[in-house]
Amino acid sequence: MLNIFEIIGTVAFAVSGALTGIKKRLDFFGVLMLAITTAIGGGIARDLIIGNTPPLAFRHPIYITIALVSTVGVWIFYRYLFRLTNVILIFDAIGLAVFTANGARLAFAGDYASLSVAVSLGVLTGTGGGILRDIFVQEIPMVFRKEIYATASIIGVLAQYYSRIFFHGSWPLYICFATTLLIRLIAM
Amino acid sequence: MLNIFEIIGTVAFAVSGALTGIKKRLDFFGVLMLAITTAIGGGIARDLIIGNTPPLAFRHPIYITIALVSTVGVWIFYRYLFRLTNVILIFDAIGLAVFTANGARLAFAGDYASLSVAVSLGVLTGTGGGILRDIFVQEIPMVFRKEIYATASIIGVLAQYYSRIFFHGSWPLYICFATTLLIRLIAM
Amino acid sequence: MLNIFEIIGTVAFAVSGALTGIKKRLDFFGVLMLAITTAIGGGIARDLIIGNTPPLAFRHPIYITIALVSTVGVWIFYRYLFRLTNVILIFDAIGLAVFTANGARLAFAGDYASLSVAVSLGVLTGTGGGILRDIFVQEIPMVFRKEIYATASIIGVLAQYYSRIFFHGSWPLYICFATTLLIRLIAM
Repeated sequence: MLNIFEIIGTVAFAVSGALTGIKKRLDFFGVLMLAITTAIGGGIARDLIIGNTPPLAFRHPIYITIALVSTVGVWIFYRYLFRLTNVILIFDAIGLAVFTANGARLAFAGDYASLSVAVSLGVLTGTGGGILRDIFVQEIPMVFRKEIYATASIIGVLAQYYSRIFFHGSWPLYICFATTLLIRLIAM
Repeated sequence: MLNIFEIIGTVAFAVSGALTGIKKRLDFFGVLMLAITTAIGGGIARDLIIGNTPPLAFRHPIYITIALVSTVGVWIFYRYLFRLTNVILIFDAIGLAVFTANGARLAFAGDYASLSVAVSLGVLTGTGGGILRDIFVQEIPMVFRKEIYATASIIGVLAQYYSRIFFHGSWPLYICFATTLLIRLIAM
Repeated sequence: MLNIFEIIGTVAFAVSGALTGIKKRLDFFGVLMLAITTAIGGGIARDLIIGNTPPLAFRHPIYITIALVSTVGVWIFYRYLFRLTNVILIFDAIGLAVFTANGARLAFAGDYASLSVAVSLGVLTGTGGGILRDIFVQEIPMVFRKEIYATASIIGVLAQYYSRIFFHGSWPLYICFATTLLIRLIAM
């Protein structure tokens, strides 16, 4: 059931978690655990919120496998990366955009089709993984430190909501993704 | 469905969150996110615990709206406040008392009428928002630092439990509120 | 319904939480709250994940009572303990082993008998209480800092999974416990 879109988001958050762990000088296993937590944290929060238990990430080992492979890749290649903090921010932005779009879509698909639930669920799913990542290495989460962070997520959900009037299929999802990512990258 | 009582608690926690954010020199959006988290955190924890999904705060935008309005108010007027820390403590105490009373009432109203569940649910709902607020700005949560904090909440729930023998309607709720608030304020 | 096994784990985590609180110079009530959080945190996470609401620890006051008694014991006798940090690590290892075994057993007993769910649930239940304990006193959780921590938990679950082919009753549970504890103690 896992599409390219979700894989991109999971990889992006895993990379942001792994690089954060490396920056904080954790050993390989710490880096791996932080990558997994960041990659599946938002989705678990979302599943608990809508009562979908046990969460998807617990039932399908694919999410954790993706995080594992991403971490190994990061562990091998991070020496070639300059400006670690900027790279973390960019991958975090991709993860934020994917999971915002996915969280909101779930709200629209379910019985909770109100805009209120969609915004809450989009923002929580989008920001949840990053919040856990930052708390676990003792930083104030980005969502509380960056001017345009939750805002990018909220505007993305609104874009998805209103584009559903004009577009069908996966278009509103991608419009939400592009809107959130663009706003977040511009504000960086 | 939101009564004056819940509004008071939501405003109180939102104000405590907003002032904490200001004290930590977050920008307006960080302050707003912290206010929202503090205001709805305890209630979301409560709803997850009793399996009430999606949580109330996700279904009714009124909670987030109240937190938003409170934050704007705080942002405009905080310059006139002296002794920020004391003001935070007082608003936190009001929030603690309201949400303790509300959490415990839910336990008594539901199928979980045991005193054990009521105490657990009252303390968790009362302290949950403040715990998130403090963790997100990297402080040890008050409930672990203040002698009389969870204790005030526990005694409040006991007061609600036993006053239900003598009083009907909303009286036990208010007695719990007054007891928790009084003990917490005296201990300050 | 609480057996000796669960009591051992609850006591062990409560002791690790209480000693951590003492090390961080919290007062008695802070120490008590941290002990309770550590002792019941993993189990609550587990119950939320499998949709078992309200969580066991809320319905049966015995868990909190055990944490309370353990804390009083620690409070009286900690003066006689040398090398506080080592004692914390040992009790934490016992708690990790018990709750890993218990979390995984629940996965095998339920409708979620896949190895993936068992590993996720075992690791989350085993590490959850300690993660909360460390975050609340502003340390990076052990699971992100110690090389062999989640690894010990994962190998323990695998041991339980495969030993179920050869053993009946509670044996796989104890084999998981012994495996996790041994690996964790050796790696210390």
